[in-house]
Amino acid sequence: MSPGAVSGTLAARFRFDVSLEENVQMSIPAAPQLPLGFSASGSTCGIKVSGKSDLALFVSDRDAVAAGVFTTNKVCGAPVIVCRQRVPSTVARAVIINSGNSNAATGEPGIRDALQMTASVAEQLGCDANSIFVCSTGVIGVPLPMPKILNGIPGGVQLLGTSEQHLLDATTAMMTTDTFPKMASTDVAVAGTTVRVSGVCKGAAMIAPNMATMLSVIMTDASLTAEQCDAALRFGVDRTFNCISVDGHMSTSDTVLLLANGAAGATVSDSDLTCIRDAIQQVCQKLATDIIRDAEGADHFITIDVAGLDSRAAAYRMAKEIADSALVKTAITGGDPNWGRIVSAAGYAGVNFDTAFVSLHINGIEVYRAGTPVPFDAAALSSQLKSKRDVHLELAVSGGPCSGTESVRFWTSDLTQEYVRLNSEYTT
Amino acid sequence: MSPGAVSGTLAARFRFDVSLEENVQMSIPAAPQLPLGFSASGSTCGIKVSGKSDLALFVSDRDAVAAGVFTTNKVCGAPVIVCRQRVPSTVARAVIINSGNSNAATGEPGIRDALQMTASVAEQLGCDANSIFVCSTGVIGVPLPMPKILNGIPGGVQLLGTSEQHLLDATTAMMTTDTFPKMASTDVAVAGTTVRVSGVCKGAAMIAPNMATMLSVIMTDASLTAEQCDAALRFGVDRTFNCISVDGHMSTSDTVLLLANGAAGATVSDSDLTCIRDAIQQVCQKLATDIIRDAEGADHFITIDVAGLDSRAAAYRMAKEIADSALVKTAITGGDPNWGRIVSAAGYAGVNFDTAFVSLHINGIEVYRAGTPVPFDAAALSSQLKSKRDVHLELAVSGGPCSGTESVRFWTSDLTQEYVRLNSEYTT
Repeated sequence: MSPGAVSGTLAARFRFDVSLEENVQMSIPAAPQLPLGFSASGSTCGIKVSGKSDLALFVSDRDAVAAGVFTTNKVCGAPVIVCRQRVPSTVARAVIINSGNSNAATGEPGIRDALQMTASVAEQLGCDANSIFVCSTGVIGVPLPMPKILNGIPGGVQLLGTSEQHLLDATTAMMTTDTFPKMASTDVAVAGTTVRVSGVCKGAAMIAPNMATMLSVIMTDASLTAEQCDAALRFGVDRTFNCISVDGHMSTSDTVLLLANGAAGATVSDSDLTCIRDAIQQVCQKLATDIIRDAEGADHFITIDVAGLDSRAAAYRMAKEIADSALVKTAITGGDPNWGRIVSAAGYAGVNFDTAFVSLHINGIEVYRAGTPVPFDAAALSSQLKSKRDVHLELAVSGGPCSGTESVRFWTSDLTQEYVRLNSEYTT
Repeated sequence: MSPGAVSGTLAARFRFDVSLEENVQMSIPAAPQLPLGFSASGSTCGIKVSGKSDLALFVSDRDAVAAGVFTTNKVCGAPVIVCRQRVPSTVARAVIINSGNSNAATGEPGIRDALQMTASVAEQLGCDANSIFVCSTGVIGVPLPMPKILNGIPGGVQLLGTSEQHLLDATTAMMTTDTFPKMASTDVAVAGTTVRVSGVCKGAAMIAPNMATMLSVIMTDASLTAEQCDAALRFGVDRTFNCISVDGHMSTSDTVLLLANGAAGATVSDSDLTCIRDAIQQVCQKLATDIIRDAEGADHFITIDVAGLDSRAAAYRMAKEIADSALVKTAITGGDPNWGRIVSAAGYAGVNFDTAFVSLHINGIEVYRAGTPVPFDAAALSSQLKSKRDVHLELAVSGGPCSGTESVRFWTSDLTQEYVRLNSEYTT
């Protein structure tokens, strides 16, 4: 089974909104590449004591339309406050990202620092500070080392380029405890022109920075209005970044930005818009699942499909409760096909379903049907869970209250002793 | 600091609704004892392969008023379904509890088995089956061994007695992976008569039974109407059993029953009612915190006070998010005064507060004030966290949106490698 593929019986009965392969003709470039009109750089300004690169720039050579989705945490980083005020934008030119310091819980001085970062990039690019977005990830509650950052920005601008290596360097400079850079790129044909959607992100590894920060920049050379840009980003994020969970702890800094600069020159019709939206979703899905694959201490990559509800929100709540349950996670860590933990987690999602209509498959094996256990070879399934990294849970409701045709796919990782060891290390 | 006591600055500023010591004159018996008119027994009917006792009975010698609070999980055990139909009751006579098998996810046959258990006890006591309540805890998805249980019930009835040892035996027979029996008893003077409230519970240890089950029986010889009984139980449970969390996974079987048989002979005035309600809450609090003290693999007992909100519900959501955060729990496991994890967990509780009015104390040390870090001796606080089992987190909102005078106290445990080891063992 390929990672994230729909394996079991649900695939035959429900159309998952993430089964993009069936609906859109897209080609994946051999290596992720920037769309037309975008450049990137990664450089080292000295925030990280390790000496690793810590300053990333993503620049459009012309005004781009931009949308953003941010953490809803009331305790949020200064860059989130600044970026929120600048979306939607029709004059976006760049995103500057530093790693090693999240500029969160730093009060008014932190906001001034974030604004100064954007002003410095704007000065280098010869544009208005309002055209620049800023993200920070790393330790919290510590003032940014502004002299280092301001000294580093001109060098970062000089290093800008359009090659695969430039994209890789910029993505690497965003990393904190990520073990690999996370990039995705896809081309889609629009009215005879090839449009590209490319994205990068850094993921939820929470050792040194004290809390998770998920940052992502999606770029496309398609031409979108501000409304189209915002709608496409929200559609994609809802089905990808909002459908992953490592430990359910919402970050103070989560940010996903989409910049569309129109450099491909294609005129976008309504049907093309659906293709572009799906390409954006595909790129987001690759990045979001990469975060789960890189989850701290995780031994398993878990895909959860919940289907047969009367609303997507109900299916989402059930999938998220399963994903967030420490008992479900630890059962999978131990290779234990302990279905009682899974169905009972769905049971406290606040959805008024009737167990008489619920079934559960684990890796395609039916273990629970119509509210009662189904005999299965527990030893064989356990052995499979222990030997395979990918796990597929499929919970389906086939009738009764709250049943319908809506479904959700959600991804999570398991909970290991290594996760606890990593996150209980003394970091303050 | 005594366990659960209010230690820090919040105590001076807010009246916690759990500060019962200040409001009610109560005496704690040296050993927990049954109220008048109640008897109990613990016996062995052979459900547990270990040969440990597995059948508990709590009996009133006269009709009692009864109320119950149950899991809201849509996937619930057969005994929960049966008990729900029998509250409120004015003819309650007994509670039968078996350990070693939860009779959950067993479909219609499971409900028939639960009904048969109550019928068998009723036959022995010479009353109607509707007067009997039933609880089961243990492995799920396996039919009850009814011949063993039905054979065991007459012996359990013969063993009934009113001594401290009988109460201890019955409580012990409820245990699954609990490491100690959980009992509480308190006397309160009502109109010249001493009324007793006694309770027992078994707690959230989740190895063998595959999921948590919290069962509790509270008994009093006070005379209450059905409405008073229900109101007093809900008041107490809301502030105690509903304010504890080990891993946030709601059980299929959680049940708290209150039986009031009036054997003390006291006439209850409105002001007496408040005393009895508070005594019930005190007993519930002792039992609930005992569950946290017995939490699997836990190294720390964590008391969370959230104060200064405009509603108890808002304070509750913030406290619960802090308690359920794996990052908060692992920080405390590691003795890390990592306040960013605590305030950010409060930040995603869906309460629209302003960080500019938020402060946080850890074990009485202020670490965060008005949305910015406060310098503190992190090494000293870390050393204290590592050497003491009890941890006290106090988050206060002092103004801005959603601020007010409401507060909540919540208890939780930390998350250790031992918890993961215990819960990832193969159990199916």
